[in-house]
Amino acid sequence: MPAPKPWEDLISQEDIGSFNRSFEALNRPITAGTKPAVVVIDMTLAFIDSSYPSGHSETGWPAVAANAKLLESARALELPIYFTKAFADVDHVVRPKEHGRWKVATLGSSPSPTFPGDVFPEALTPLPDEIVINKFNKPSGFYGTPLTSYLIYDDVDTVIVTGMTTSGCVRATVLDAFMNNFYVIVPHECSADRSQISHKVNLFDMHMKYADVFSLEETIEYMQSVKSPAAVAA
Amino acid sequence: MPAPKPWEDLISQEDIGSFNRSFEALNRPITAGTKPAVVVIDMTLAFIDSSYPSGHSETGWPAVAANAKLLESARALELPIYFTKAFADVDHVVRPKEHGRWKVATLGSSPSPTFPGDVFPEALTPLPDEIVINKFNKPSGFYGTPLTSYLIYDDVDTVIVTGMTTSGCVRATVLDAFMNNFYVIVPHECSADRSQISHKVNLFDMHMKYADVFSLEETIEYMQSVKSPAAVAA
Amino acid sequence: MPAPKPWEDLISQEDIGSFNRSFEALNRPITAGTKPAVVVIDMTLAFIDSSYPSGHSETGWPAVAANAKLLESARALELPIYFTKAFADVDHVVRPKEHGRWKVATLGSSPSPTFPGDVFPEALTPLPDEIVINKFNKPSGFYGTPLTSYLIYDDVDTVIVTGMTTSGCVRATVLDAFMNNFYVIVPHECSADRSQISHKVNLFDMHMKYADVFSLEETIEYMQSVKSPAAVAA
Amino acid sequence: MPAPKPWEDLISQEDIGSFNRSFEALNRPITAGTKPAVVVIDMTLAFIDSSYPSGHSETGWPAVAANAKLLESARALELPIYFTKAFADVDHVVRPKEHGRWKVATLGSSPSPTFPGDVFPEALTPLPDEIVINKFNKPSGFYGTPLTSYLIYDDVDTVIVTGMTTSGCVRATVLDAFMNNFYVIVPHECSADRSQISHKVNLFDMHMKYADVFSLEETIEYMQSVKSPAAVAA
Repeated sequence: MPAPKPWEDLISQEDIGSFNRSFEALNRPITAGTKPAVVVIDMTLAFIDSSYPSGHSETGWPAVAANAKLLESARALELPIYFTKAFADVDHVVRPKEHGRWKVATLGSSPSPTFPGDVFPEALTPLPDEIVINKFNKPSGFYGTPLTSYLIYDDVDTVIVTGMTTSGCVRATVLDAFMNNFYVIVPHECSADRSQISHKVNLFDMHMKYADVFSLEETIEYMQSVKSPAAVAA
Repeated sequence: MPAPKPWEDLISQEDIGSFNRSFEALNRPITAGTKPAVVVIDMTLAFIDSSYPSGHSETGWPAVAANAKLLESARALELPIYFTKAFADVDHVVRPKEHGRWKVATLGSSPSPTFPGDVFPEALTPLPDEIVINKFNKPSGFYGTPLTSYLIYDDVDTVIVTGMTTSGCVRATVLDAFMNNFYVIVPHECSADRSQISHKVNLFDMHMKYADVFSLEETIEYMQSVKSPAAVAA
Repeated sequence: MPAPKPWEDLISQEDIGSFNRSFEALNRPITAGTKPAVVVIDMTLAFIDSSYPSGHSETGWPAVAANAKLLESARALELPIYFTKAFADVDHVVRPKEHGRWKVATLGSSPSPTFPGDVFPEALTPLPDEIVINKFNKPSGFYGTPLTSYLIYDDVDTVIVTGMTTSGCVRATVLDAFMNNFYVIVPHECSADRSQISHKVNLFDMHMKYADVFSLEETIEYMQSVKSPAAVAA
Repeated sequence: MPAPKPWEDLISQEDIGSFNRSFEALNRPITAGTKPAVVVIDMTLAFIDSSYPSGHSETGWPAVAANAKLLESARALELPIYFTKAFADVDHVVRPKEHGRWKVATLGSSPSPTFPGDVFPEALTPLPDEIVINKFNKPSGFYGTPLTSYLIYDDVDTVIVTGMTTSGCVRATVLDAFMNNFYVIVPHECSADRSQISHKVNLFDMHMKYADVFSLEETIEYMQSVKSPAAVAA
């Protein structure tokens, strides 16, 4: 039985009906390739923890735990893993042309110089072979970065996208992965957002159009089904 | 006094508060450049009219009327105008690799061969100098198209994005325009969607992050303020 | 024994020595993946035939014959094949913003309305499943087109690039394929140029940096070695 | 009288004639916009100095001097200036997927840990406001970087490209600038290459197709003509 979707208490019958589609379309099985990779978007303290103006501890720390579980499985299966963060280094002073046209004054600023926000929590420390991509302040992990070339090098056909925020950088990354013709999976416990209505509606939008939004458990099952020794031997 | 925003009946006080921002941040004035262009996304019958499986007459036809008003002003001010549509021609049979990874079976299919969906309604007929970009089935007007090069050629610094659907191709185009460091304005009456909660939340998301979501009237006032003979002489 | 390279009569010992590399580096075997595709760039009459201002019959027609041979093998091996051409259709009047910043007055113009240049010679007619990409006047087959997404969809790791002109659209396409981390092979008989020094030096440059420039025969041998039933079963 | 072009001793009458164009086409005046920026490609020790396997002192150090002169003028005129280099930092160990498909074993490697190659010579030290873009090993300054977004932010219409090597990263950057519909100027004394025939033919190719290749002096005159107080007041 499929796990419940996080938007079920929110989306009206009328809105779902507007797509001329039955509920089965939303409870479909995962449709993806056999060569997945994991892209963890901006799981840095500035977005996770409420001690930063852009953070949200209530949903951020549970997402850290869910990502840690996903990474444990992905590493055991030797999947390619990439992380993104916002800047090149914690001391980087963002110039106006790097900040660009954001409708917010500052992003990821630190509460104090000794407590920088652009770092990963210990549970999500990248391993030496896992590339950390500096997004230079744009939402998508693909925009202005070499991510496409890494996915092609690693012979990937499916991108599992996690991180923060659901309605911001996660959705932007999902969109670009989809437009490049990768299959996309979003394990929803691994994403979080400050606005809960945005979190749910963006998961719904992505599931309707671009991605398979599934539970962490279902995603791990999928990964194991395509990458376990038995699957590879078949 | 600023016009009301379309999401005001939906977004909770808690969700807005989660951004650590006051309501003023949402009622800010338009912040944009002085060289706007208009990009009309996918305003073709297949998305406008409910006689197509992907259409939604209830919101689509009012959006046609709003776009006609916007284009009338934009043409009087001699702004660059670009249209997108999904395919190269109405007879084009979409191959699997062109359809890509959409989580829907078909897009813009026609009720009958003599009633094709990939055409503009008469009120939104492009003029000979207004380029029609074929998006080949991807949401963003930028992905796999020369749109960036046209905007650079036309010396544009601000992109006014309209069309259908708000949560799909409009949002994807807004995102890419923003990442390219164009200012972005979304006149919300000129966009429409089948899902009304998606329409409202996507407008909210874009206004929080990437764009100025304003009324059609406020957008026309902005265009006139930067492009009227008086503004140009100043 | 490897086939001779087309630049051997032109490049000086001093210039090759400047790379601190032995001649072996230039006579290396093909290093590529196991999932090749063919991209045929702009093999249209306007570039092939001297009756057009941009054409060069002396090298263009032999390149047609070489491409026909390559395509015969590629089709027998069921490789993905893509063609590019410059415009959407033969009647398309190019606007200044589509012409862009070319340092030439016109591209691919026709000697007469009844003899259009933007068509393929009969020997290189695309089959129904082979996508024809309209490049809209830019050199690279990737710029402003969905080509990357098709290559990802088709699970390609190696791109065999042919067509005209070597120093123009072929080199630009090779460069983008390389930057996306595809392996690149250029069978040099399948490319041609008006300027013969440009043809040879660009082949040399590409072989030094981005691609394996080999003979048509060596390229076909490579294709067969990775895609023949025996190779696939191994 | 226009300055002589660096390819005049090399390109044959027949090759120039193959373009059906008179010599005037090559001696044309600069055709560019009024809002130039300077992009300095990879002017780091590893490419400049022969003590590195990828360097070429004989042409590299004169190019440093020419770039210093260009930057002096550009800074006096307050033009936007961007630098590129190959890696994020001198200690960065390049992974295979970052090295990609280069047909060379190593790039920019250092003769010793205390003499790193990925640094600028003192005469070309970037000022604090001049962004240094890390290209992560790909030739074009645009591929996988936010350069397009910076040029749009800075309201640029013309890109002056310099650096090393002419046939490698300079040409790749010129090509992408051209495809984005920026005007492109290449002051040829500011570029250098190990292979001299590649240097000359690539300058010729770019001048025939994508850019205005002019002398340093002519380029500075152009910059002053569009940006001096008199020009701006006109």
